[in-house]
Amino acid sequence: VFCVFKVSHYLLCFVPVGRCKAEWRPNNSPKLMDLLDDTVPGIGTYEDFNTIDWVREKSKDRDRHREIANKSKQSTVALLFSISDAFSGWLLMLLIGLMSGALAGGIDIAAHWMTDLKEGVCLNGFWFNHEHCCWASNETTFQERDKCPQWKSWAELMVGVSEGPGLYVVNYFMYVCWALLFAFLAVILVRAFAPYACGSGIPEIKTILSGFIIRGYLGKWTLIIKTITLVLAVSSGLSLGKEGPLVHVACCCANILCHFFTKYRRNEAKKREVLSAASAVGVSVAFGAPIGGVLFSLEEVSYYFPLKTLWRSFFAALVAAFTLRSINPFGNSRLVLFYVEFHTPWHLLELIPFVLLGIFGGLWGAFFIRANIAWCRLRKNTSLGHYPVLEVVVVTLLTALLAFPIEYTKMSSSELISELFNDCGLLDSSKLCGYTSNSGSTSGSVNATAANGLGARLAGPGLYTAMWQLALALVLKMVFTVVTFGMKVPSGLFIPSMLAIRHHERDIFRGWCSPGADCITPGLYAMVGAAACLGGVTRMTVSLVVIMFELTGGLEYIVPLMAAAMTSKWVADALGRESIYEAHIRLNGYPFLEAKEEFRHKTLATDVMRPRRGDPPVSVLTESGMTVEEVERLIADTTYSGFPVVISQQSPRLVGFVLRRDLVISLENARRHQEGVVSMSPILFTECDPPMSPSAPPAVKLRSILDLSPFTVTVHTAMEIVVDIFRKLGLRQCLVIQNGRLLGIITKKDILKHMAQMANRDPDSILFN
Amino acid sequence: VFCVFKVSHYLLCFVPVGRCKAEWRPNNSPKLMDLLDDTVPGIGTYEDFNTIDWVREKSKDRDRHREIANKSKQSTVALLFSISDAFSGWLLMLLIGLMSGALAGGIDIAAHWMTDLKEGVCLNGFWFNHEHCCWASNETTFQERDKCPQWKSWAELMVGVSEGPGLYVVNYFMYVCWALLFAFLAVILVRAFAPYACGSGIPEIKTILSGFIIRGYLGKWTLIIKTITLVLAVSSGLSLGKEGPLVHVACCCANILCHFFTKYRRNEAKKREVLSAASAVGVSVAFGAPIGGVLFSLEEVSYYFPLKTLWRSFFAALVAAFTLRSINPFGNSRLVLFYVEFHTPWHLLELIPFVLLGIFGGLWGAFFIRANIAWCRLRKNTSLGHYPVLEVVVVTLLTALLAFPIEYTKMSSSELISELFNDCGLLDSSKLCGYTSNSGSTSGSVNATAANGLGARLAGPGLYTAMWQLALALVLKMVFTVVTFGMKVPSGLFIPSMLAIRHHERDIFRGWCSPGADCITPGLYAMVGAAACLGGVTRMTVSLVVIMFELTGGLEYIVPLMAAAMTSKWVADALGRESIYEAHIRLNGYPFLEAKEEFRHKTLATDVMRPRRGDPPVSVLTESGMTVEEVERLIADTTYSGFPVVISQQSPRLVGFVLRRDLVISLENARRHQEGVVSMSPILFTECDPPMSPSAPPAVKLRSILDLSPFTVTVHTAMEIVVDIFRKLGLRQCLVIQNGRLLGIITKKDILKHMAQMANRDPDSILFN
Repeated sequence: VFCVFKVSHYLLCFVPVGRCKAEWRPNNSPKLMDLLDDTVPGIGTYEDFNTIDWVREKSKDRDRHREIANKSKQSTVALLFSISDAFSGWLLMLLIGLMSGALAGGIDIAAHWMTDLKEGVCLNGFWFNHEHCCWASNETTFQERDKCPQWKSWAELMVGVSEGPGLYVVNYFMYVCWALLFAFLAVILVRAFAPYACGSGIPEIKTILSGFIIRGYLGKWTLIIKTITLVLAVSSGLSLGKEGPLVHVACCCANILCHFFTKYRRNEAKKREVLSAASAVGVSVAFGAPIGGVLFSLEEVSYYFPLKTLWRSFFAALVAAFTLRSINPFGNSRLVLFYVEFHTPWHLLELIPFVLLGIFGGLWGAFFIRANIAWCRLRKNTSLGHYPVLEVVVVTLLTALLAFPIEYTKMSSSELISELFNDCGLLDSSKLCGYTSNSGSTSGSVNATAANGLGARLAGPGLYTAMWQLALALVLKMVFTVVTFGMKVPSGLFIPSMLAIRHHERDIFRGWCSPGADCITPGLYAMVGAAACLGGVTRMTVSLVVIMFELTGGLEYIVPLMAAAMTSKWVADALGRESIYEAHIRLNGYPFLEAKEEFRHKTLATDVMRPRRGDPPVSVLTESGMTVEEVERLIADTTYSGFPVVISQQSPRLVGFVLRRDLVISLENARRHQEGVVSMSPILFTECDPPMSPSAPPAVKLRSILDLSPFTVTVHTAMEIVVDIFRKLGLRQCLVIQNGRLLGIITKKDILKHMAQMANRDPDSILFN
Repeated sequence: VFCVFKVSHYLLCFVPVGRCKAEWRPNNSPKLMDLLDDTVPGIGTYEDFNTIDWVREKSKDRDRHREIANKSKQSTVALLFSISDAFSGWLLMLLIGLMSGALAGGIDIAAHWMTDLKEGVCLNGFWFNHEHCCWASNETTFQERDKCPQWKSWAELMVGVSEGPGLYVVNYFMYVCWALLFAFLAVILVRAFAPYACGSGIPEIKTILSGFIIRGYLGKWTLIIKTITLVLAVSSGLSLGKEGPLVHVACCCANILCHFFTKYRRNEAKKREVLSAASAVGVSVAFGAPIGGVLFSLEEVSYYFPLKTLWRSFFAALVAAFTLRSINPFGNSRLVLFYVEFHTPWHLLELIPFVLLGIFGGLWGAFFIRANIAWCRLRKNTSLGHYPVLEVVVVTLLTALLAFPIEYTKMSSSELISELFNDCGLLDSSKLCGYTSNSGSTSGSVNATAANGLGARLAGPGLYTAMWQLALALVLKMVFTVVTFGMKVPSGLFIPSMLAIRHHERDIFRGWCSPGADCITPGLYAMVGAAACLGGVTRMTVSLVVIMFELTGGLEYIVPLMAAAMTSKWVADALGRESIYEAHIRLNGYPFLEAKEEFRHKTLATDVMRPRRGDPPVSVLTESGMTVEEVERLIADTTYSGFPVVISQQSPRLVGFVLRRDLVISLENARRHQEGVVSMSPILFTECDPPMSPSAPPAVKLRSILDLSPFTVTVHTAMEIVVDIFRKLGLRQCLVIQNGRLLGIITKKDILKHMAQMANRDPDSILFN
């Protein structure tokens, strides 16, 4: 786990790309796309850490579809195949939903059990968690569900007595030991088996969805290790959530299942449609919010999201949510631990505290992003990064040591949120509901309280203890999350330790409430605070509100949530445009062309294209007249990922574009398999052969790998339009012409570098093509 | 109302385009875009019934934004202006939400009152509707809320007695008279003041959002007349719903409010962003479903929907929903009349009837579209279309005559749906709940029934009457809707007369239910049936499910709804790919490039471009060397909407593209205002002037209107890619080059004609550019 020098991992992966695990590479399959059936294996595929060409992928898929449609008219078998092909997308979605739902259920159950294992063990069977252990017990009273003789804390088990001064120390020690063990196991597993299993995964998934290739990032090893280490990391008590990793797990499932469907295995664009749906599934199982998950995928992670994908994502998200529900990991028939249901109306004036919460959330979001990025940079640039295992162990140790004494940091994030979100019932034993807890807990008093209404109760000392503990928990969680994110799992869940704020409101607003009515819903404040903080960190808007709406199930609270989310986003955007995911993408130098931000500068294509003014002209191939040797020398001398093909050097009129990889593979293949090819053999991109002397060596004909319809812009085209074209069509490169003459080339990397430069950032931070 | 010869309206509008009402024309404003400040008024605008160029509009907006950003650094006033400019979008959304919500509330109240007016009048004041009249009365019992002495039917009022055989006939007569009056008023108003106020509006709004100009379609007259006639048409009892027109009304509001914001008034692309949000608002107020509205806009009507619009649409939809709620038109604190809340779980085996409902819905949808289009064609091609007023009056007469005797056709669609969706309560007086209604209605029996559970009750004769009436109502509604849609308002609401099916299920499934439990929720069947039918007609998917989810407020029923909606869409798609809206778009010949359907044919740009093979070469301008006279002759001889500019006729290398409209305006302007311009004056598109003899007339320099970065494709580019480019970038035309030489041009109309041809349809059905 806890990969630190991500970039160095990637750089390491760069070198042995030829020997990379073959499992995820389309070119591994001997049969190629129909379009390229008569060509050489490997053509039409991509190298690791490269950008795909969406236009080419989509064309390939359309060709495939066309061929199936044509064949289906000829025979019944082909017709059946065409129908099964049409439904394979839905089947795939079903499988992804089932698999992700099942995995999420397993993770929830395992994490719950292991979190409890830190505190004690069940005598009825070690595989019971605290709650299940006491369910099985008959001696549990309704008032104190958590206490039963079958559940023994470690101290009770080891010392043998059930009370005494040493018990606390022994429990403390065991808690820290277990936490360290879990964290150590997690980090060792990740380092040994799957370095990609570290981190949140969402920045990388965003990049992959935008059309980047990171082989193995969504592989089976990543899935296995990520699932195991996610449980370990959550159980270790580190300040992290399971939402981001669940998205990663769902995407791994999708990628693995894609392998059983030719349609998706062989097409990077189609695969990304499936992955978009899978990220919706991830959020759906993390929050139990299928609609919110789809909107999250649409708003936050997806790049290419056609309407067909919308519908399929929705289907997959629903399947996953219902799978999870039937597993019932929390034993409450709900999809999430912190499902809430309260319907107290809110007062219009309460919008003011909601907006204040939004401002707080925005400030926190901006601060969190800066602090986290600064910490990650520090880790990257100093020797701190050389000891990732040690870092994890130290952070876990500190977290565990500080967390145990405070009730609200000791409990897991989900439990905490569950407690904060819920409105106080009359029988609630939580300290947060301890309004009258010390005035006598007889049944009569409970009835009296009910008669007075909750609002009339006075805050007891238990509540004040809870409040300062909560405030302390908030500060601690904040600090630890900054340090933890980037080691392993994201800040998805922890955030809403916002209860500390709410009770002040209560005093201010008491005047507005009709006497006896509980007009302030504390759970609502916690929820709005959570939304504001999450909004500040991730800059989600509609999806965040919809996720919260699905959690509460009432349209009543959409307005408070929206007010907070909107304020939070505005405040955070004013302090820095990037979300935490985008900041991490930039930190890692991925070539990600953000679709949200408009390009506002008034530069032209001529300012961005290479060669720059004064440089030698662009390296081109001519459609005839070059020899194998010349082309090989050009390939060796340059690092461009492709070459324009022109009529002749004197008349640089564009004929087409050929990709470096395709060219290299074709030349190798010609040298190996085509008879008589020598260094002096001419290379022809023309349709018809020019006249040649019979003694000349046979020509290498490469028109089949030539892209005859490369995208072109003129030198006068505004960069804002070029950026728009790249974004919307998913281009990899574009040629620049003037009055029909080829002048230069613009690649995605050039654009990103240009954008970095215009934003006064280091253009060399863009590492990949 | 009830415009019949839509196309003829448009053709009429074509001719007096120069004298069109000036209010909606950006070129009416003397100050133009900053970019074009120094040029002639009118340049950069579009003619009526033409397609906009999204790229140009977006560039204009970016230029504007850039200028404001630059100025804001210079002075405080400019800074404030820049801030107000940034927030103007949100303000506009707020206003649209408020206005649409208020209008929708007014329409609901007025329609409710006028519907009741057909039956009788309130003695306390004629402005009370039936329900309000009896609320005010003290003599109403809880059991019979609808009966009170203050409410008099027309017969009672006129004949003077409260019982007798003639009463029914008089009421029948008055009902038909009122219906005829309302319908006649509506059709006369539409014909006299706003022909565009007829119909659903959604097909036209879809077309407008895709980048088409129909001046006055969203104007203030259309708004006023549509609001009034919508109330009249709904009240007249015609088989139509108010959803489509509410979307139109919301879009009119948006368009009118856009006028107060320079940013949106002067930019067609920005205006369309606002209109996309407005269509979400329309659905939000029609169904009380803000999230569903946003998804409807995204899935069904919008063309260009950036994330910023998503967030703003959501805001506007919420504002509208809350405005409507505070107006409280139905007196139940809900946004819609047929809000339902039931939480009975459903059995997994019930999925089978749900899927069957889906199949029925799909079949109905496909049948409805065909029948309706056939009817519209008939109206268009025969003399039927010459008597629109007569048609409306006759249809209304028939509807009213047949509707009055049957209880379920007599009540308004919303009331019917409300009755069908709701689960039977114990005190419900509806006949549909009449399981034990004739076994004695004493209080004791009610208690006994409650003890037995609803499921144990037997169906009474009242229920069977209700069932055959409902089946009859279903058939009648179906026939009338086919005839009515296209006259005025869409089939949004009426559909779910599906109750007839549900009771059969009850018998089949009784075996599955635990005795005494009401395991079949009849309201759920009605709702699923409604969703299936609506899905079959409109082909909505996610948005439909989400709208229904918001109506019921429970995630439990998402799976049944989705199963039905999905089946319905598949079945309907198998019988015909188009939704009712798309069918009407095609019927009217609008240039709409559908984004959902992939272009699957293997044609190349060279097959579509003009000139075709064998035709004379494309008409071009040269960048120098042409005179004013030559250009004017070229303009007069051709009808192209633009001309490529090349270096010379001999060397047709592309320099740029100039739009016909810009060229005409510039030449007129030069003739009028530039001194010494004669027919022999040269026209120059070059950057620097070529040497000329001093005696030559002064040159007309037109480089400022030249688009130096026209989009180009090569002759080898597959049409699927060209279509993709047009869709995603919103192009109007694209030039075709080969090896740097200009060969032809492809316009949006060419593409649509080509697509029509490939689909074996008449390419001449595409009427507009």
